[in-house]
Amino acid sequence: MAPPDPSALSEKDGIPQPETVSSDQAGQIISRRQKKPSPQTLFDGISQSNVSALSRAITLVESTSPKHLEAANQIIALCLPRANRSVRIGITGVPGVGKSTFIEAFGKYLTGLGKKVAVLAVDPSSTISHGSILGDKTRMEDLVKDPNAYIRPSASGETLGGVARKTRETITLCEAAGFDTIIIETVGVGQSETAVHSMVDFFLLLKIAGAGDELQGIKRGIMEMADAVVINKADGDNVKRARLAKTEFNRALHLFPAKKSGWMPKVETCSALTKDGVDKVWGLISDYLELVQGNGYFADKRQAQNQYWMMETIHEQLQRHFFSNPDMVKEIERQKTAVLQNEISPFAAAQSLMDRYFNR
Amino acid sequence: MAPPDPSALSEKDGIPQPETVSSDQAGQIISRRQKKPSPQTLFDGISQSNVSALSRAITLVESTSPKHLEAANQIIALCLPRANRSVRIGITGVPGVGKSTFIEAFGKYLTGLGKKVAVLAVDPSSTISHGSILGDKTRMEDLVKDPNAYIRPSASGETLGGVARKTRETITLCEAAGFDTIIIETVGVGQSETAVHSMVDFFLLLKIAGAGDELQGIKRGIMEMADAVVINKADGDNVKRARLAKTEFNRALHLFPAKKSGWMPKVETCSALTKDGVDKVWGLISDYLELVQGNGYFADKRQAQNQYWMMETIHEQLQRHFFSNPDMVKEIERQKTAVLQNEISPFAAAQSLMDRYFNR
Repeated sequence: MAPPDPSALSEKDGIPQPETVSSDQAGQIISRRQKKPSPQTLFDGISQSNVSALSRAITLVESTSPKHLEAANQIIALCLPRANRSVRIGITGVPGVGKSTFIEAFGKYLTGLGKKVAVLAVDPSSTISHGSILGDKTRMEDLVKDPNAYIRPSASGETLGGVARKTRETITLCEAAGFDTIIIETVGVGQSETAVHSMVDFFLLLKIAGAGDELQGIKRGIMEMADAVVINKADGDNVKRARLAKTEFNRALHLFPAKKSGWMPKVETCSALTKDGVDKVWGLISDYLELVQGNGYFADKRQAQNQYWMMETIHEQLQRHFFSNPDMVKEIERQKTAVLQNEISPFAAAQSLMDRYFNR
Repeated sequence: MAPPDPSALSEKDGIPQPETVSSDQAGQIISRRQKKPSPQTLFDGISQSNVSALSRAITLVESTSPKHLEAANQIIALCLPRANRSVRIGITGVPGVGKSTFIEAFGKYLTGLGKKVAVLAVDPSSTISHGSILGDKTRMEDLVKDPNAYIRPSASGETLGGVARKTRETITLCEAAGFDTIIIETVGVGQSETAVHSMVDFFLLLKIAGAGDELQGIKRGIMEMADAVVINKADGDNVKRARLAKTEFNRALHLFPAKKSGWMPKVETCSALTKDGVDKVWGLISDYLELVQGNGYFADKRQAQNQYWMMETIHEQLQRHFFSNPDMVKEIERQKTAVLQNEISPFAAAQSLMDRYFNR
């Protein structure tokens, strides 16, 4: 029997057509349309390196609304097994040293090596200024356009603890999305450098050559935290001064006790403008990684950081519960005044508050 | 009417006799006999500069027994209005710099000026070694015998916080007993220097001239806290080296940002052995006091210290209550392990513990 005639309504297959929207664009459209994608949906997007899903998940993590907390925690729990496979680099420096330009040049160099780079920021001051150090993305024009880079401005929050928590969970999400190099920028506002130091593998202090008094006015704690000092703007007339500064910083770094990592902090000059020396910065980070991954310090430090953040969060929550307790607020003020007027010792005042808080 | 004949049993008054025991000794005997002198009795003794009453009160303050807590708090409350009228000087330095010899020479110099000097210590390690840096009083033979000096070894305690609290309350008792110069010694064990720094008006770092590398291995935080660096053992062949060290330290101190007090830290050489330069150390402390009592920093700092200790005690107690809570101990361990095995984020782990602790 001959095959039945094809219906007049049937058509021959044409040549394969490209989809009118790419699957990536489709993902973006879908995730924009779905008002509340499930944690699983967002995680699926993240694990396919979908930047739009990543951004939505970060927004959930950054939300201060309690109803988003559970979803955020679920996404992070899903991401954790895929996280931790990255290098986390902290970068600090006062305004004017060219942090944005350096991060752009450094980030482009890294994507040129085939790396996937996420740039985050910890800037508690952004809550007040309603801006953020990374808010002005136009300062990183090339990196923003790079498909292998992801830039996210600083979370805002009432406390540094809040901002730090959000940034740290954002690292987990970025890592799960396949970013293998996480750069975390901060300016020296309050304790933000300490917070960033406690969430990165390598801490880099960016400087410029000044008028010979390089060490003047450096906040000492920051020098001590630095694994490297990079003197930026070593170009044109500045090259000689930058070299002098390098010598001075090298001498200063030798005054500090040896680091537990076994690493001796290094000084390098570079120009984010001409790109000179940017490769050497990555070179010394690579040397560092080789050392600490070999001697076990890399893994130890990450475990210690996890413990630190767990404890920090407990401390912060215990205090928040106490100091915002409506039954306590007035009494705390009363005891503070009594201490300031020398009517009661600080210890007796604290004791009396504790007795009340714990109904003893 | 003539006055009645005196009874044959009556005697004429003799010439005035000295008491068989001095009132001070009597006080000692009384306070030894009374097993539990009342807080008021001890306070009365303290306000009459009775050293024995002072020692008993300090013992109460140092006691870890809860039944002594109320009495201790009562005594401190009584003493507070008489306290605060002193200069509190912190002295630190690694073993071998001659802290005991220096404190003896410095203390004798001060009593020679008519001052009443109390020497206390913060040494959390003494709990472990069952000794204390001031335990061996034979190292301060002359000062021990000086009626205008009072030496008390470090309190022992499980935590630095405990030791610090006891020392700080002991300062109050010593001040109420009329001691106008309080010296608090510490060795660089853990955070003990920070604790001492936050209870004194002036912080002195004792050093010796070494082999040219004076700055090598200095814990940076300590240099930053110091209001003066005193290079001890500047005698004999050592004088030249001590002078060189002075120049080096002067240069190093200039690298630090200016202090809020408006004081520029000073370097001095001295020999506790020959007593050379001991007067200059007191001279620079006097200069400092003149400056900070004039610009208001002295009073501001003491108020800030009171606030600090109140807050520190609250934090410590909140944490102790949480971490020693029998319902929590197991769960804390479980969450710690989960964090270390990367099964849960540090923040989610902390959150889960908080929910349980506060029955949310």
